[in-house]
Amino acid sequence: MSHQQIEKLRQKLDDINLQLLRIINERASVVKEIGEIKKRYGVQKFDPIREKDMLERIVEHNEGPFDDNTVRHLFKQIFKASLSLLEDDHKKALLV
Amino acid sequence: MSHQQIEKLRQKLDDINLQLLRIINERASVVKEIGEIKKRYGVQKFDPIREKDMLERIVEHNEGPFDDNTVRHLFKQIFKASLSLLEDDHKKALLV
Repeated sequence: MSHQQIEKLRQKLDDINLQLLRIINERASVVKEIGEIKKRYGVQKFDPIREKDMLERIVEHNEGPFDDNTVRHLFKQIFKASLSLLEDDHKKALLV
Repeated sequence: MSHQQIEKLRQKLDDINLQLLRIINERASVVKEIGEIKKRYGVQKFDPIREKDMLERIVEHNEGPFDDNTVRHLFKQIFKASLSLLEDDHKKALLV
């Protein structure tokens, strides 16, 4: 097998993984910021219409190789994790 | 509510979403390339040890706000979707 070729692609994959990690966490920080502002004004954190709009905007830009349904599924997981993060913060705040 | 502040953060979120989309698809392309090479040499596509190593490397670099388990969960979803992509290609090839 072309080990060298595979090794090069794996290195690329590792780099992409760390880029993804950085951006996923950057996204989580922005969601937390929005959550803080909403909390200050007593606004509901989960906004299904905004979430639907975001998904549509993402899918509109999708050029693959992942198909639209896979992209939707992956982003829904990210949205869900972000919401859990806000709920955890809320629980922690209640415990203080 | 500070609409302007929220709008600015939402705009940032939309930008981050498109960055994520681009990188997730870039990752999928690299996985496909690796899959092509492996297929040519008749090597099993799913490599659980390599997947475990990748996850460990990612989590080592995690600085939050997402905790390690959430990061693991999100990346496992991405890995799973990538593998499905290879399987779909294989099915399509069989149908030709």
